[in-house]
Amino acid sequence: MEQQSLKPYVIGLDLGGTNSVFGIVDSRGEIKATTAIKTQGYEKVEDYVDASVAALQPVIEEVGGIDKIKAMGIGAPNGNYYSGTIEFAPNLSWGRDGIVPLAKMFEERLGVPVALTNDANAAAIGEMIYGVARGMKNFIVITLGTGVGSGIVVNGQLVYGCDGFAGELGHVIMRRENGRSCGCGRSGCLEAYCSATGVARTARELLATTDRPSLLRELNPEEITSLDVSIAAGKGDELAKEIYEFTGRMLGEACADFAAFSSPEAFIFFGGMTKAGDLIMEPIKKAYDENVLNIFRGKAKFLVSGLEGASAAVLGASAVGWEV
Amino acid sequence: MEQQSLKPYVIGLDLGGTNSVFGIVDSRGEIKATTAIKTQGYEKVEDYVDASVAALQPVIEEVGGIDKIKAMGIGAPNGNYYSGTIEFAPNLSWGRDGIVPLAKMFEERLGVPVALTNDANAAAIGEMIYGVARGMKNFIVITLGTGVGSGIVVNGQLVYGCDGFAGELGHVIMRRENGRSCGCGRSGCLEAYCSATGVARTARELLATTDRPSLLRELNPEEITSLDVSIAAGKGDELAKEIYEFTGRMLGEACADFAAFSSPEAFIFFGGMTKAGDLIMEPIKKAYDENVLNIFRGKAKFLVSGLEGASAAVLGASAVGWEV
Repeated sequence: MEQQSLKPYVIGLDLGGTNSVFGIVDSRGEIKATTAIKTQGYEKVEDYVDASVAALQPVIEEVGGIDKIKAMGIGAPNGNYYSGTIEFAPNLSWGRDGIVPLAKMFEERLGVPVALTNDANAAAIGEMIYGVARGMKNFIVITLGTGVGSGIVVNGQLVYGCDGFAGELGHVIMRRENGRSCGCGRSGCLEAYCSATGVARTARELLATTDRPSLLRELNPEEITSLDVSIAAGKGDELAKEIYEFTGRMLGEACADFAAFSSPEAFIFFGGMTKAGDLIMEPIKKAYDENVLNIFRGKAKFLVSGLEGASAAVLGASAVGWEV
Repeated sequence: MEQQSLKPYVIGLDLGGTNSVFGIVDSRGEIKATTAIKTQGYEKVEDYVDASVAALQPVIEEVGGIDKIKAMGIGAPNGNYYSGTIEFAPNLSWGRDGIVPLAKMFEERLGVPVALTNDANAAAIGEMIYGVARGMKNFIVITLGTGVGSGIVVNGQLVYGCDGFAGELGHVIMRRENGRSCGCGRSGCLEAYCSATGVARTARELLATTDRPSLLRELNPEEITSLDVSIAAGKGDELAKEIYEFTGRMLGEACADFAAFSSPEAFIFFGGMTKAGDLIMEPIKKAYDENVLNIFRGKAKFLVSGLEGASAAVLGASAVGWEV
């Protein structure tokens, strides 16, 4: 006979730069119900929380009401595990300029305990418990989405650092001279080149500075997305392939530096851009092999998240909730 | 009454690119006797081990003979804690081209168990147990010697990675275009600029490519050392001050990237070049503040090793010995 907990579920929230995905998760990691809202478009964080709670209400009812919910876990950009806050998140319209006590706000609105961590850390926990990192003690998850994030696991533990903000590998500097401006206020960050928006910028730059033919010229340059580039590359478009080649090479060079730090067993790529498959993974591996210190060569695996869509992030966020 | 162990001492060996310093250490971290040999100048590792054992013999006798020795701990460049080997160490004439089972070799010659780790990891253990990192859970030791090494502590544990080689921060790439060649076979590494030999190279470059006056022009360019540059800077030599400014700035920029990885409570600098004091520490701190992601600004301490000379490394190496 299965033991029934009085509060058998946690809410996991994968708070991304574009979408916020909620899942009601049981203790075996099964997602019982989901809902989602847009992350942006709210002037104030209060409006975002209102919209979240409104979207959550029906799915909470679906599993038997708030009394069945033990806690909530949130994975969010610039999320701080120690304080439950989001601090100076450059990609969030309502979280850019200060410290947002999001865990506390949800706690007050829902009446359940809420824990929060970096979105990429949540993905790393998800991969470690349910995904391709099962059994690994040293690995790095790199999330390729609106921004570039990372969750670093060393000796089987997430690296939070002295302040809860460790693992901001999207903001190592890849171009020290004439680097692209980044949402963080600096220049030359990995994220400015290798995020989905970075890929679109690369496309616009190449279209504007060359007269090479490309399927991408049929699109309004301002509206080009990384998905458009991926589709064009899939059709054999040379310029589009070169954009992914450039992006992958820079990621591979960055991973070579990360190996010098924590010598991980694997780099695990996560997020929408991994749908480009070999288009991006092959140049990553090639550039890594060409750039990594010889003692590390050939050791690290390069993997794509094995969990469907946003599941890893939602499951990871929910895992944080179980620990409340 | 103090409990007397039958084997009250360990041998600590700080194996540097230039000198190998041995210390006989008791369980309270007191160094009872020391000796040293040059690390280089041996064709084969067997000759190096012979010279080491010959130098050790009298100090071992001094503390009562080999029966009083519990174990030996070694801190060495490219040292691997897991396997007790030194692998492809670019700065060691007898360790450059392969895998040297140094722990096993000393074990067979001395008849005591021998453990080995990266020299910078040993320094980090020394700082954590006896030095300025006491009580810290997250810090990075950066060793500025013949090369640039690092020992990284996360959640109170040394970062060894999947293969025992994590923490090679001297080999992150700081110049991706036209970088200086490095002993590791690649180009643009931090070590090629910010090691003692890197500082001397910067001096030679500036003397050769400008006609600016400098006290350093009185020296044979091929024989200039980082100490010469430090002495000239101390006398107010503008060119020499600029060399340390350049070196410190690059270290500060590198530390800004390292913060994005593990957000340490402190960066601890260790090794001969720290004798330059503010000449190097001030530009490090300034460049760090100017380059670090805003969420990290003002958080990390910048410290110089509090342990005299090679003590931290010898004590750290000995601590590895206690754990055998």
